[in-house]
Amino acid sequence: MEQTVLYQMFEKRFPYESGEPVLPDCAVFWQEGEKEAKRGTSAIRTGTFRRTETEFAVRFMPEQEGVWHYEIRVPGTVLSGDVLCVREAAGGVRTAGECASDMGPEEGCPLGARPAAGGCHGRVVAAGDGFAYLDGEKFLPFGTTCYAWIYQPEERQEQTLATLAGSCFNKLRMLVFPKHMPYNNEEPERFPYLRDGEGGWDIKRPDLLFWERLDQVIARLGELGIETDLILFHPYDRWGFSELSGEESRCYLEYCIARLSAFHNLWWSLANEYEMVIRKNHADWDAAGELIRDRDPYGHLISIHNIMQLYPKRDWMTHCSIQSSDLNRIPYWKKKYGCPILIDECGYEGDLEFNWGNLSAFDMADRFWWTVTRGGYCTHGETFHREDEVLWWSKGGVLHGESEPRIRFLKDLLYELPGVGKADPMFDPQNPNEERRDGHKPNEKDLRFLELVRTSPEEEKFGMYGDSPKKLAGEGWQLYYFGRSCPCRVHVRLPEGECYDAQRIDIWEMTRTPLAEGVSGNALLVLPGKPGTAVLLRRREPEAG
Amino acid sequence: MEQTVLYQMFEKRFPYESGEPVLPDCAVFWQEGEKEAKRGTSAIRTGTFRRTETEFAVRFMPEQEGVWHYEIRVPGTVLSGDVLCVREAAGGVRTAGECASDMGPEEGCPLGARPAAGGCHGRVVAAGDGFAYLDGEKFLPFGTTCYAWIYQPEERQEQTLATLAGSCFNKLRMLVFPKHMPYNNEEPERFPYLRDGEGGWDIKRPDLLFWERLDQVIARLGELGIETDLILFHPYDRWGFSELSGEESRCYLEYCIARLSAFHNLWWSLANEYEMVIRKNHADWDAAGELIRDRDPYGHLISIHNIMQLYPKRDWMTHCSIQSSDLNRIPYWKKKYGCPILIDECGYEGDLEFNWGNLSAFDMADRFWWTVTRGGYCTHGETFHREDEVLWWSKGGVLHGESEPRIRFLKDLLYELPGVGKADPMFDPQNPNEERRDGHKPNEKDLRFLELVRTSPEEEKFGMYGDSPKKLAGEGWQLYYFGRSCPCRVHVRLPEGECYDAQRIDIWEMTRTPLAEGVSGNALLVLPGKPGTAVLLRRREPEAG
Repeated sequence: MEQTVLYQMFEKRFPYESGEPVLPDCAVFWQEGEKEAKRGTSAIRTGTFRRTETEFAVRFMPEQEGVWHYEIRVPGTVLSGDVLCVREAAGGVRTAGECASDMGPEEGCPLGARPAAGGCHGRVVAAGDGFAYLDGEKFLPFGTTCYAWIYQPEERQEQTLATLAGSCFNKLRMLVFPKHMPYNNEEPERFPYLRDGEGGWDIKRPDLLFWERLDQVIARLGELGIETDLILFHPYDRWGFSELSGEESRCYLEYCIARLSAFHNLWWSLANEYEMVIRKNHADWDAAGELIRDRDPYGHLISIHNIMQLYPKRDWMTHCSIQSSDLNRIPYWKKKYGCPILIDECGYEGDLEFNWGNLSAFDMADRFWWTVTRGGYCTHGETFHREDEVLWWSKGGVLHGESEPRIRFLKDLLYELPGVGKADPMFDPQNPNEERRDGHKPNEKDLRFLELVRTSPEEEKFGMYGDSPKKLAGEGWQLYYFGRSCPCRVHVRLPEGECYDAQRIDIWEMTRTPLAEGVSGNALLVLPGKPGTAVLLRRREPEAG
Repeated sequence: MEQTVLYQMFEKRFPYESGEPVLPDCAVFWQEGEKEAKRGTSAIRTGTFRRTETEFAVRFMPEQEGVWHYEIRVPGTVLSGDVLCVREAAGGVRTAGECASDMGPEEGCPLGARPAAGGCHGRVVAAGDGFAYLDGEKFLPFGTTCYAWIYQPEERQEQTLATLAGSCFNKLRMLVFPKHMPYNNEEPERFPYLRDGEGGWDIKRPDLLFWERLDQVIARLGELGIETDLILFHPYDRWGFSELSGEESRCYLEYCIARLSAFHNLWWSLANEYEMVIRKNHADWDAAGELIRDRDPYGHLISIHNIMQLYPKRDWMTHCSIQSSDLNRIPYWKKKYGCPILIDECGYEGDLEFNWGNLSAFDMADRFWWTVTRGGYCTHGETFHREDEVLWWSKGGVLHGESEPRIRFLKDLLYELPGVGKADPMFDPQNPNEERRDGHKPNEKDLRFLELVRTSPEEEKFGMYGDSPKKLAGEGWQLYYFGRSCPCRVHVRLPEGECYDAQRIDIWEMTRTPLAEGVSGNALLVLPGKPGTAVLLRRREPEAG
């Protein structure tokens, strides 16, 4: 019996030729027996796609151990068999990285037998306000952005992977189609499709070498524990990929789904700046979202990224992927959308002329802290002007900035804390003009203030209420972040009868300094009055008596 | 014939007693002859008010030179006479400051004959997007805040005046009623009113010593060239002044109008944080605004200050007095309200626990720059925690912070430039993802971007478009401010055929460094990639040939 590993891709190739690059919905994988009623045990229906000039392939990612049966029916051919899914790979199986370095274009890579690097926990799913791996393991997205890195020379791609391997980032936003924009003027060597006879693109003829390479980079990212936030359409285009017809778009998406959805580390991003993709309207985006939702048998994450107007909430959307620097709105978006909020663009660390690309390192780090203490997640990018035009945000390479260590510092801290935390308004219901009290009985002015918070138009209330520091709190801990505010003291409210230890955190110096021990109730903490200060409170566990 | 000075207060006292503290609309001042049709020459109708225990008084501020006739009719008494208004006071007339130091409570101060310190230009009026003195002289508000300084010991009040005299500020927000709030817990020695027999306030019996003192401080501020932004109601109250009935409020306002409206340096602020004055509703505020508009014969500036919901536009409102840190909305408010936008509270420099009072000095200065380059005006305050609870924002005293010199630096620069400037979006109509071009022909994506700016809900578009740097431009000059953004270069667009010289400005170091000479057209300027950078471009005047 064939064998594969939980959460890893199993690929079955067979000789086949067709004018169509993909035959959707013609393969099925299923399990029998006692596990039938549980999640991950229902049948996986998927498509087959052109894999080489003479072969089609089916890919499958088991999310449950045990024996799986499969059947593939394409015109003239029926294949069937069994595959055993085990938790751990046998020793000595080659990794995709090893494969990638020595495989020829026609050979393909036995990705189906890769071991999980450091223990694979399956795909990431939306869970409440946040995310988690399929097996329940904690996942907090700390992403970065290298839009067009797969269009770079191989050496630079390797450099990018090495930089990523040494970084804290666990998600990468990247484009399928090539990019035309300032600092992105080169002609790619290879495109996702071959040209037709008239200089257009033949969407029936994927460039198999391109897709081979895309497979490899997704696999390599997976080995690094990095989620691939794959952007399917974007407007920065001089080749025509932003102007595909509805039928062409559908054919392209079906190929992506059939080929890529068995990667555990794949997220679908329908677009970057969807409003600027001028030839598509909301109906087109909805059709794309619904197609992916219906055809991707695993239910990978799906989002769409805006330039200005957030896309309305849709059933196909698993989370919000937002471009905005107006981070005070995160609590509002959480309420409005009822799904996880990912700030996939709030500006990049750099010094460009463009306002989206000239944050100081402090501001980039500050935006991560500000976002997470409002209950969202944030994404990094780096855009320092260079005469060689190799900017991390698009081409990868190496990082030149100073924000990554600060982002890592925050990530390490959040992973150290139990659970994922919930964001709460920092203070009890109290108007901002009174002494911080033990807040059990709101007075008349507190109630008025709360009424104002509740009833004010969104556009108005953020100037007074939205920009106040917030906290993230979990079982036995609270994390406050004060942003650029400079309080020299703060009252925190802790459960009576529980003892907390407080640390002062300097997000720039990356220091954690003891601040107070054994505090409880309405406690006053003395702070340095400096921008970039956070406070972590952790409950002391009772000593064994 | 009696004599007075243009724009200065003329006061006429007469023996009179009444159960009412004020008799509205019983005095008239008018001019005859050729000037009848012009502004300032129409009759000034005003009230008389209790000035001492045995006297009432009428006050008058001429805004036109020449002979004025007056007639005062109160039950049982008619007074009439003529007063000559001259442009300059005769030498040797005492200033209000000199009066204040030696006058007894019953004597009153001959404020009517004060010379203008350094040349008085009359009251400030709203003019287009901004303000100007009545005589057309440039006025750019650079205000500060000492809410309760008139309730402080006399020595501290003198210290406050000395600090103001040495500062750049030309407007002061201050309360009439005493203040109860954190850092403001003392019981005042004196209140605006005497108590009735039941522990309430007798609005028919103003405490004349209080009002005497209020006269003095407004006069002293006038001598320093400082506008008094007088806050008539506020919610920080434990004595009951925020709960006056409609009738009591009206009586109080009529006394204020009759007594204070002849000060040239007076602005009416109906409330601080009007929504938190729980006993008043919109109808009450409108009644107050209309009363002042109808009874103040000069038309002093009138505004109302919010905690969260901007007050809707009303006819009685001459400008917006806004509490918000959401400064990116200034262009939106300008359009919506069609009147000058004054950000009277965007946070204060300090280190308090309260988010409204813990800005870094850089952020306070940055907010002034950010506001003015968006076409608004900004107000300062200072709130450093002190055990003695003497915080400038409320009690005055001395300044401890570092923002005032930076604010002065901006003020000096704006006064140096001709005219007042208009705020414009920084860039030509162009989407933010393309090279900065000579922008004569917007392309399809530029048009899409502009359509998005035009059609997006206000709540959404500020995250992408609202936070980009803007410029202020006047005849022959442009002033760009980049805020915390760190561009290392910027393209500016200048008229072809005109030569401009560029200065790089560091708002923190307060330096102005030559950057480029004789540039025109679409010019590239190299910047240091540092937060707090501005660029000033001034047209070179053609040399005489």
